Amino acid sequence: MNGIVVRNIRRADAQIVASLGRLGVATVHEAQGRTGLMQPHMRPLWRGARIAGSAVTALCHPGDNWMIHVAVEILKPGDVLVVACSSECTDGGFGELLATSLKARGATGVVLDMGCRDAREIPQMQFPLWSRAISAKGTVKATIGSVNVPVVCAGVQANPGDVVVADDDGVVIVPRTDAETVVKAGGERERKEAASRARLEKGELGLDIYGMRLALEEKGLKYVDGPLD
Amino acid sequence: MNGIVVRNIRRADAQIVASLGRLGVATVHEAQGRTGLMQPHMRPLWRGARIAGSAVTALCHPGDNWMIHVAVEILKPGDVLVVACSSECTDGGFGELLATSLKARGATGVVLDMGCRDAREIPQMQFPLWSRAISAKGTVKATIGSVNVPVVCAGVQANPGDVVVADDDGVVIVPRTDAETVVKAGGERERKEAASRARLEKGELGLDIYGMRLALEEKGLKYVDGPLD
Amino acid sequence: MNGIVVRNIRRADAQIVASLGRLGVATVHEAQGRTGLMQPHMRPLWRGARIAGSAVTALCHPGDNWMIHVAVEILKPGDVLVVACSSECTDGGFGELLATSLKARGATGVVLDMGCRDAREIPQMQFPLWSRAISAKGTVKATIGSVNVPVVCAGVQANPGDVVVADDDGVVIVPRTDAETVVKAGGERERKEAASRARLEKGELGLDIYGMRLALEEKGLKYVDGPLD
Amino acid sequence: MNGIVVRNIRRADAQIVASLGRLGVATVHEAQGRTGLMQPHMRPLWRGARIAGSAVTALCHPGDNWMIHVAVEILKPGDVLVVACSSECTDGGFGELLATSLKARGATGVVLDMGCRDAREIPQMQFPLWSRAISAKGTVKATIGSVNVPVVCAGVQANPGDVVVADDDGVVIVPRTDAETVVKAGGERERKEAASRARLEKGELGLDIYGMRLALEEKGLKYVDGPLD
Amino acid sequence: MNGIVVRNIRRADAQIVASLGRLGVATVHEAQGRTGLMQPHMRPLWRGARIAGSAVTALCHPGDNWMIHVAVEILKPGDVLVVACSSECTDGGFGELLATSLKARGATGVVLDMGCRDAREIPQMQFPLWSRAISAKGTVKATIGSVNVPVVCAGVQANPGDVVVADDDGVVIVPRTDAETVVKAGGERERKEAASRARLEKGELGLDIYGMRLALEEKGLKYVDGPLD
Amino acid sequence: MNGIVVRNIRRADAQIVASLGRLGVATVHEAQGRTGLMQPHMRPLWRGARIAGSAVTALCHPGDNWMIHVAVEILKPGDVLVVACSSECTDGGFGELLATSLKARGATGVVLDMGCRDAREIPQMQFPLWSRAISAKGTVKATIGSVNVPVVCAGVQANPGDVVVADDDGVVIVPRTDAETVVKAGGERERKEAASRARLEKGELGLDIYGMRLALEEKGLKYVDGPLD
Repeated sequence: MNGIVVRNIRRADAQIVASLGRLGVATVHEAQGRTGLMQPHMRPLWRGARIAGSAVTALCHPGDNWMIHVAVEILKPGDVLVVACSSECTDGGFGELLATSLKARGATGVVLDMGCRDAREIPQMQFPLWSRAISAKGTVKATIGSVNVPVVCAGVQANPGDVVVADDDGVVIVPRTDAETVVKAGGERERKEAASRARLEKGELGLDIYGMRLALEEKGLKYVDGPLD
Repeated sequence: MNGIVVRNIRRADAQIVASLGRLGVATVHEAQGRTGLMQPHMRPLWRGARIAGSAVTALCHPGDNWMIHVAVEILKPGDVLVVACSSECTDGGFGELLATSLKARGATGVVLDMGCRDAREIPQMQFPLWSRAISAKGTVKATIGSVNVPVVCAGVQANPGDVVVADDDGVVIVPRTDAETVVKAGGERERKEAASRARLEKGELGLDIYGMRLALEEKGLKYVDGPLD
Repeated sequence: MNGIVVRNIRRADAQIVASLGRLGVATVHEAQGRTGLMQPHMRPLWRGARIAGSAVTALCHPGDNWMIHVAVEILKPGDVLVVACSSECTDGGFGELLATSLKARGATGVVLDMGCRDAREIPQMQFPLWSRAISAKGTVKATIGSVNVPVVCAGVQANPGDVVVADDDGVVIVPRTDAETVVKAGGERERKEAASRARLEKGELGLDIYGMRLALEEKGLKYVDGPLD
Repeated sequence: MNGIVVRNIRRADAQIVASLGRLGVATVHEAQGRTGLMQPHMRPLWRGARIAGSAVTALCHPGDNWMIHVAVEILKPGDVLVVACSSECTDGGFGELLATSLKARGATGVVLDMGCRDAREIPQMQFPLWSRAISAKGTVKATIGSVNVPVVCAGVQANPGDVVVADDDGVVIVPRTDAETVVKAGGERERKEAASRARLEKGELGLDIYGMRLALEEKGLKYVDGPLD
Repeated sequence: MNGIVVRNIRRADAQIVASLGRLGVATVHEAQGRTGLMQPHMRPLWRGARIAGSAVTALCHPGDNWMIHVAVEILKPGDVLVVACSSECTDGGFGELLATSLKARGATGVVLDMGCRDAREIPQMQFPLWSRAISAKGTVKATIGSVNVPVVCAGVQANPGDVVVADDDGVVIVPRTDAETVVKAGGERERKEAASRARLEKGELGLDIYGMRLALEEKGLKYVDGPLD
Repeated sequence: MNGIVVRNIRRADAQIVASLGRLGVATVHEAQGRTGLMQPHMRPLWRGARIAGSAVTALCHPGDNWMIHVAVEILKPGDVLVVACSSECTDGGFGELLATSLKARGATGVVLDMGCRDAREIPQMQFPLWSRAISAKGTVKATIGSVNVPVVCAGVQANPGDVVVADDDGVVIVPRTDAETVVKAGGERERKEAASRARLEKGELGLDIYGMRLALEEKGLKYVDGPLD
């Protein structure tokens, strides 16, 4: 499946997608059993964005961003472009012209397992972008890849139409068919965390709130009074 | 010495600790003979914090943050939690719930040779944090380590009760028993630097202020007029 | 050519240098045929600066910043100090005292293939700085290198008097004798990009603007309707 | 799909698997359109092994090798164990006792996106092993993962029953249903390469054998006589 | 404690040291509670050596090997030289002349958290060496450090007189006062492993030998028959 | 100077080249003032080769080895092909077919700042190769670069016709016009080292042979008797 562009993909329900965005990366990652998180080299170009959208995937070659141009036509409003690369690359395959184009097509953001450039202009546009690197290194348009095929991006399998959630903590992929379940589990987690937060703020200990003391003792943890020196 | 929690430790005098904080990392590191600096992968989650406190140490295992929960109980107001890991790990073992808990207990900050998460919330709380990485990757509570034992954190030996100084330049450890001497040496260094700064601002050369010309000549440095091309 | 300081170098015309600065790193790099860009580990200490100047080069040894002190005397207003290191090093060989000195001598900025320190003070001074790392690790003054000899800095050959352009996208070197040609090519590129930007903003596709469809078809790119799942 | 062990999987035909092994990693990777290759950090513990087998996958957590023990029971003769990790880890989760066990069960080899240990004993056993690192760091058995679920290992999606080919060039995954097609394409490639090799040995040029001269000219490549200095 | 050379140190009993050498790195590391292992970037220059000896420590500066020369005089037969560096460095501070000198003084081997050179000659001499890198980059003799002070080498605290064990799996430090206990624990571990090995060779499962099935079930591991595709 | 192939270059005298080869990398690097050494990521594919030859340079793009094919035609017997890449890349742009071709044309070896493949076959051919990585990842022939222009390869400027020396310690470049001087300096260094080696073998100390004691004392090194614990 190389050299293929799939025009139409199934997307998750817009409300579900929005709910995942409200939960944020850390909660969504936990809510789906600690899976789907991209490697921590994926960093936001600017702090403060929190987005969710349907993945349109592009598979590029190192030093080549041709398939990004092809993918733009396929994007629908609310989509997030997910760019994988067939081997490790930091070249700047995405800049403010492409950001302008994605914005015009209604895309919500872009996730690049390569570099980006125009690191001053893109934050000024408030266009959300996560990447492996910032690099002005130009890319060619010489080798075809694919659009909307399954890809591995920053260590995670992403299928077209999966939900992408991204914020200051990184990027997580939610399989489309799991999205609703994850929203529910995430909401529950948020409620539990709110309760814990209230108790922690008062100085209660996680050891007590989460009932860890017995398990620690069983594992053999020993307390000594000290000081030892 | 594994599986041990030491409840009480000796701490440096609070005024000494505060003085080290005022000096900052670069000056303290120089003042103690260029030792004690953690590796430069230790970066602040947000810029502008400058803290000092007594080290409470925790030794965790990769992918596991259980001992952080144990350490919280041991922390006293003014302490800095120093988290080492038995092998290299970027997982997000510390988030805003733990930050809430540390803040409630009066801790001054946290230094993590692993990852952190909630990279938006923790800066909003103004809780000072230095870490190896930002990652939403969740951690388990399955394997016991130790609290308040000597650890190696980011390349530096840290003993419980040592003074931790951290700012935008990184993190430095001052052995508790050296703290007073370092404060004095640091103050002296500051005075000298202020004098140099005033002269440098006027355009005087370091070559002259520090008297380097003779040594350079003895080493064989040659000046040619140029241009050579 | 070790242990040599060349006092005088040829510099590019000041107006040409200023024009390169206005174009910025990404445009300049493209305009000179995608050459001259330093590796992406070279990052600005603070965001938002965009500078250009004539390179005064210094070749240091790991853990040693002596030649930076020697280079200060050689700097003229408008110069950018380019510091290379004879092997990989992240030590903090440049801090606010040296920044004060460079500022007083009229230097426009500094580019360091080593570390910097005083990461709070230097941004407050608004002194432009690009480096490989932030590290408080102090350096010695023990081994001589050279000033104003050709160096390789972050993967790029830099000759004394070449033009250095640096901004949030990184650092690019323009050979002095190419500078005028690059200004022209860069201006042309800017005009073309402005035209493309206007069309992209309206939602036109790069595929059409850049006429890529035929080439993609010839390479064998296939479109399928989908969805495939 | 976490915490699941799938006992039975579909495997490719044994003769097809053997044919892929004869072709080797480089040829197989090319024959399937340059896909499926694991990242180059995956290196053989000893040089000279060339294997192929059906993938039994295990998903472990950092610092934890419990699922490897679970996977052993599922292995059938001719299988290759493929161990992925939920975040980056170099700990030595596989040593000579596990190698003994895999050998006894008839496994053909192991591919680990973590570390291995007993780097002297395993080569003496002639047990084929590819890993990210060599490290004696011990691992725990504390957190469950899964066996025979789809995993991402060293940047590549591996499904249970896919064919694993590994040799001194690295590791490549062939989807089970593509295996026969890849054998054919690989054989053809071998024949072509044999023909090219014979011509290259006589001193003929790839430029002529592959007919590249026209394309190079069209791209604008210019020849000058030189020397230029 | 900088700029100090300690002439005499306490060493562990020679027979204890020899016993630790026989056990090897992986067993010793496990036997002392999975502590003391250097980071996996420490690799042998040649495969097959397995040594143990008393640590004589040297603290060098990046690009400077002066303290190695100082340490040679302090070495006694059976010692292992442990070289730490005050910041990360790969320069080749140790070559065949130093290896000749160490051999002549009766040293058992060298462990370098920097680079080595003469990568052909040292294996021919059969002199055991572990290092971070191989690099011909020369070093200076310009800055003093210390000999026989506590150092952090490749992530591990090493005190003078501690026992160093090194083989193809890496390098482990055993605190001198723990050496005898570790020998006993290691011997016991070897006996247990021999018993397990015999059972594993016959095809018995670790799941049964180590009694893991119940714990896995309690953690919630589920078996399904499959195949799922 | 992109898209250019220079057919003829000046080469150093063959006897001078051979002499540099006999000296080896470490000696040559020292003899020319510790310059010209490539970064230590450049490793031999197999141990034991020691070569020298005239550099024919190729500048490739990431994921693209087209210019290697172009360079083959330009190579003369005794040349070493030096392949630089316009940004960091580990793809396997060189395998046994190209090795066959280079061997047939009389090339002495190849130095690649990218990956190589056929890691079993090339050592069997005894063809000397140094590279950044081993990777089966295939490369395209899509973008033109240049042949016989100055390049930066693994951190070092290499001009066509410079002398390349490579062995187990790495790769060093000697500027063509310095070659004769370096041979002389290298020979002298060898004689001095032979004398030192003889004395070191007898147990004499470098401290005495090189007369370091006074300088150490002047720097403030203090000896204490110990033991301190």
